[in-house]
Amino acid sequence: MEAKACNILITGANRGLGLEMVRQLAAKSCPGCQIFAGCRDPGAPKSQDLRELAKKHPGLIHVVQIDISDLRSITDCAKKVGPLLGKGGLNMLVNNAGVAHLVSMKDITAKDMEESFKTNLLGPMMMTKEFLPYLQVAAKACGKPGMSCSKAAVINISTVGGSMAKSHEMFDMFPVIPYRISKAGLNMLTVCNALEFKEDGILFVALHPGWVQTDMGGKNADLSAQESVQGMLRVMKSLTEKQNGAFLDYRGDVMPF
Amino acid sequence: MEAKACNILITGANRGLGLEMVRQLAAKSCPGCQIFAGCRDPGAPKSQDLRELAKKHPGLIHVVQIDISDLRSITDCAKKVGPLLGKGGLNMLVNNAGVAHLVSMKDITAKDMEESFKTNLLGPMMMTKEFLPYLQVAAKACGKPGMSCSKAAVINISTVGGSMAKSHEMFDMFPVIPYRISKAGLNMLTVCNALEFKEDGILFVALHPGWVQTDMGGKNADLSAQESVQGMLRVMKSLTEKQNGAFLDYRGDVMPF
Ligand SMILES: NC(=O)c1ccc[n+]([C@@H]2O[C@H](COP(=O)([O-])OP(=O)(O)OC[C@H]3O[C@@H](n4cnc5c(N)ncnc54)[C@H](OP(=O)(O)O)[C@@H]3O)[C@@H](O)[C@H]2O)c1
Ligand SMILES: NC(=O)c1ccc[n+]([C@@H]2O[C@H](COP(=O)([O-])OP(=O)(O)OC[C@H]3O[C@@H](n4cnc5c(N)ncnc54)[C@H](OP(=O)(O)O)[C@@H]3O)[C@@H](O)[C@H]2O)c1
Repeated sequence: MEAKACNILITGANRGLGLEMVRQLAAKSCPGCQIFAGCRDPGAPKSQDLRELAKKHPGLIHVVQIDISDLRSITDCAKKVGPLLGKGGLNMLVNNAGVAHLVSMKDITAKDMEESFKTNLLGPMMMTKEFLPYLQVAAKACGKPGMSCSKAAVINISTVGGSMAKSHEMFDMFPVIPYRISKAGLNMLTVCNALEFKEDGILFVALHPGWVQTDMGGKNADLSAQESVQGMLRVMKSLTEKQNGAFLDYRGDVMPF
Repeated sequence: MEAKACNILITGANRGLGLEMVRQLAAKSCPGCQIFAGCRDPGAPKSQDLRELAKKHPGLIHVVQIDISDLRSITDCAKKVGPLLGKGGLNMLVNNAGVAHLVSMKDITAKDMEESFKTNLLGPMMMTKEFLPYLQVAAKACGKPGMSCSKAAVINISTVGGSMAKSHEMFDMFPVIPYRISKAGLNMLTVCNALEFKEDGILFVALHPGWVQTDMGGKNADLSAQESVQGMLRVMKSLTEKQNGAFLDYRGDVMPF
């Protein structure tokens, strides 16, 4: 992704993994790159770190308002970002924003399910749909066969919690039904999109970041945000059409669905 | 399921696989059994076959109103059915009702997603939650260790379309994004419920009925509803705690997630 000018959009970029990804991408970027850092409250105290980072990289980091649980906000964002992308289109969309409600079947309500569904599944789906024309532009503009994150890609930040095959390993610790279900759905979305847009040359991959020290992951997590993002960017750089539709972790290991 | 008096509840029982399941279960039932045939419009022409079947088996088949996309209807149903279950509780809940919107990413709307999500995923979840106390009664009343469909079980009717590992085999033929996502979510729900209620002795299994000649499956499908249901009932009869959380087809073969 660093080799040539790229347009990248990342949701949930004001803290946690999203912010760290913007930071590392900005540090490695080359002239002409643009990073669109999506965040639902650009003016809020919780977005101060992102605002400061953007100030250090004028013309490179654009902070854009996106609440991915709000369809209107998604289409508004596409209207604003679209014209800024130019002839290069959008090379990479990272659907990173997510929420985890700690709720098991005993206490669950339809509302818990709907909120997780909106943010973790419908949001990434509608982001992908709205930005698809710009991803198609990028894929065409590249002119080369094959797939890569520097050509045109959608990276969905998923989780091991969305793996049915691995659920028994960690269920008691993490009985988060709406989170697990919405992320399993996100994995299926990734697979379906990979199949539907294969001919367009757009790559779709689901990535598990590891268990990471963020507000969501907590202090006892295995990895720092820096380590996780270093790993994910390494994996993203290595992706080709062979991984289209895959579910991988931050080390590049294949995850079972 | 035929060996002793059982209480069984099946959703979407007015046509297709649900109706055929009621028919076959009724034919094999023993004295004291009760089959609750859920259907959203008991009085409508589309429910005539079920009404006639119920008339032939008075005291055995109870037609009950349930619209599984309506939470109120689910709680009302539980209030009505609960007292009829008696000390035996509910032995088996078959979450069979489902919808398949034929829509790919290109045309999809948030509404398509929400409708599939409500019927195929939230409906089975809330049915399970509402009837859980009666399933627990059944599991306790049984008094024996282990798990089985004649003790206490939730069978979620899923589909190969909900398998990520098999998506590439049939995507072009069946680009039904909301259906696939909601059924993948239903598989995850099955896995999570199996883990959460293991100690209660309640069995949770997801079943793929095969490709079946119903309104949903169409005329060119591989199997008649009779064949599919014969297979599923054979599999259901064979289930033990070893299959808790499994995803199987109507022949009992393990399906990959
Ligand atoms: N941390 C882990 O151990 C871990 C493990 C597996 C997967 N993940 C996944 O990694 C991704 C990032 O997680 P994280 O650890 O960085 O979480 P985090 O520290 O809680 O940050 C979540 C980010 O998502 C944003 N967000 C939430 N809802 C949003 C919405 N409706 N619209 C726009 N932005 C929204 C938040 O914005 P606000 O500040 O406005 O709330 C925040 O920027 C998530 O998809 C998560 O599921 C994390
Ligand atoms: N047929 C296949 O090839 C196939 C393959 C894989 C999986 N399946 C699954 O098997 C199950 C049964 O399918 P089928 O082939 O019998 O389909 P079908 O012939 O279309 O019948 C669907 C049934 O579900 C009911 N239903 C739909 N929405 C409902 C709601 N909100 N509340 C209550 N009932 C509702 C319908 O009632 P109304 O009459 O009121 O609409 C009908 O009784 C579904 O879960 C389906 O996904 C079928």
